[in-house]
Amino acid sequence: MVEHPTHAPTLLGPGDAVLAFDVGGTDTKSALVDASGRVLGLRRTPTPLDPSDPAGTIVAKLASLAGEHLAGAPGVRPMAAAISVPGLVDEVTGVGMFASNLGWRDAPIRSLAEAALGLPVAFGHDVRAAGDAEHRLGAARAYGDVVVLAIGTGIASALVLGGRPYAGGGYAGEIGHSLADPFGERCACGAIGCLETIASAGAIARRYSVASGTPVAGAREVLDAATAGDPVARRVWDDAVEALAEALARLVAVLAPEAVVIGGGLAQAGHALFSPLGERLDALLSFHRRPVLVHAELGDDAGLLGTALAARDLAAARARGGAP
Amino acid sequence: MVEHPTHAPTLLGPGDAVLAFDVGGTDTKSALVDASGRVLGLRRTPTPLDPSDPAGTIVAKLASLAGEHLAGAPGVRPMAAAISVPGLVDEVTGVGMFASNLGWRDAPIRSLAEAALGLPVAFGHDVRAAGDAEHRLGAARAYGDVVVLAIGTGIASALVLGGRPYAGGGYAGEIGHSLADPFGERCACGAIGCLETIASAGAIARRYSVASGTPVAGAREVLDAATAGDPVARRVWDDAVEALAEALARLVAVLAPEAVVIGGGLAQAGHALFSPLGERLDALLSFHRRPVLVHAELGDDAGLLGTALAARDLAAARARGGAP
Repeated sequence: MVEHPTHAPTLLGPGDAVLAFDVGGTDTKSALVDASGRVLGLRRTPTPLDPSDPAGTIVAKLASLAGEHLAGAPGVRPMAAAISVPGLVDEVTGVGMFASNLGWRDAPIRSLAEAALGLPVAFGHDVRAAGDAEHRLGAARAYGDVVVLAIGTGIASALVLGGRPYAGGGYAGEIGHSLADPFGERCACGAIGCLETIASAGAIARRYSVASGTPVAGAREVLDAATAGDPVARRVWDDAVEALAEALARLVAVLAPEAVVIGGGLAQAGHALFSPLGERLDALLSFHRRPVLVHAELGDDAGLLGTALAARDLAAARARGGAP
Repeated sequence: MVEHPTHAPTLLGPGDAVLAFDVGGTDTKSALVDASGRVLGLRRTPTPLDPSDPAGTIVAKLASLAGEHLAGAPGVRPMAAAISVPGLVDEVTGVGMFASNLGWRDAPIRSLAEAALGLPVAFGHDVRAAGDAEHRLGAARAYGDVVVLAIGTGIASALVLGGRPYAGGGYAGEIGHSLADPFGERCACGAIGCLETIASAGAIARRYSVASGTPVAGAREVLDAATAGDPVARRVWDDAVEALAEALARLVAVLAPEAVVIGGGLAQAGHALFSPLGERLDALLSFHRRPVLVHAELGDDAGLLGTALAARDLAAARARGGAP
């Protein structure tokens, strides 16, 4: 499943120059954004994982990356920085509460990074940053009530409700860890039958490998096999679509989003995902508000763009003399 | 299942005098609230149902009630009124989109009522009004992210997210019409296996009557039978608790409320509901934010109190010269 091409570099538009860091479990994406909105020096470097000091080691790496970005663009003076990470994030206190693949618990990332970078720092969640970018710059621009779903190795979502991001104290949006099958397998999170044990790209590949005895590397191969008539692949794919449709139907009943934006690796399946998903969702709903299902627009850079937006929001708030 | 006693009459506190109408499928509750917050002349009258002009007939009845309230308290001059109704409500446009038990579709209730009452009118949803009252005056005062669940004949909920009511264009909160059992019975709404076909007080009574061959009038009798050792009653009650726990677990994964306030007739079961529900919810969750489960405080008058709050909000906004 290929990535989207990089979007227009001036998508962000004019504003403060900022530094943006999207820290993932494997790689960290970083860039300097200038006052015209150009994304300068965008790079992907391995995220350092040090069990003895996971947060300090990562923050030190970000400071080193900041130095490289500034050296590469001597005329650009950032007014703020922002850092997005996976896991449980308290955006209000600036604390990374938990991230299984980064190794920290209750790490005061924002204060560590402000000291290391010498800049005001916004600290947030990677999927909520991507959702914010899709809402302000991408596929969800036209809507006030939106769910942005990222389906890849796992399944996560960002909620925009009444035009504003909703974080639920850092715990919201975990649709991947909502109950899909009470008689299903135990998820890595400890709960039983989570949606992402059935419907993530990772689960689709794993379930097919187990059921067929033929190891596959990804969901794309399972879809291709299903399309070619492989009944095991068809069942695994259809189970994933059904679980996604049921989870979305439940979410529609309670939140009534106008749009569900779907991104992540699995969204690259396009029509083969969106068409049956929309049909099953229609069948499961009655009087409910039916959301449009739209493909994410910003691709793999949504998280970095949303992170840059958070840094700009912070810089603007500081310039006004207020809190963000 | 008994109603709560009426709460202190000055719970609303000082503010503008207003008229409040909570229009239900059977009865309409109405009252005049004076500037000290006293609820004057609270009464319950049958809601007139006229298929040829459902909205006009109800609004005419409200105007007649308003006259009675004003005649009974000649020194009180209301600055605004508010009307809450069931069904699908667009609070922004003031339109009752649909109410199966009142019979209207896309009825411009707010403009009809403003003409009939000669006052600015706030128009809203009965369960969201009750939720707002519980959030501002009752069991949910301490929380910013709250789900207020009303379990009676049906199941509905009101959402307060980030300290603000969330209506989803009038469609939000319909947890009673979220999928509980894909192989379940068809709900009156047209969908299959809705939560309220298993876990509403009405469903508990109906399912027990069918399964046992012994007709019962309400869920209280089923609980009493279960407590006395009736295995059919035990199964019906446990199925309801399990369906509620699963629906709440899914909602917790996505919205992460700090508190779930439970009201309506079924909440009168008290410990027999809250204790197993909390245990099952604990078992279904892992890293999620576990909400406290609390009993609604305002009882059967929550809707009327929330309606009065909406009228006061509107009066205050008009006094400031702005939109509500």
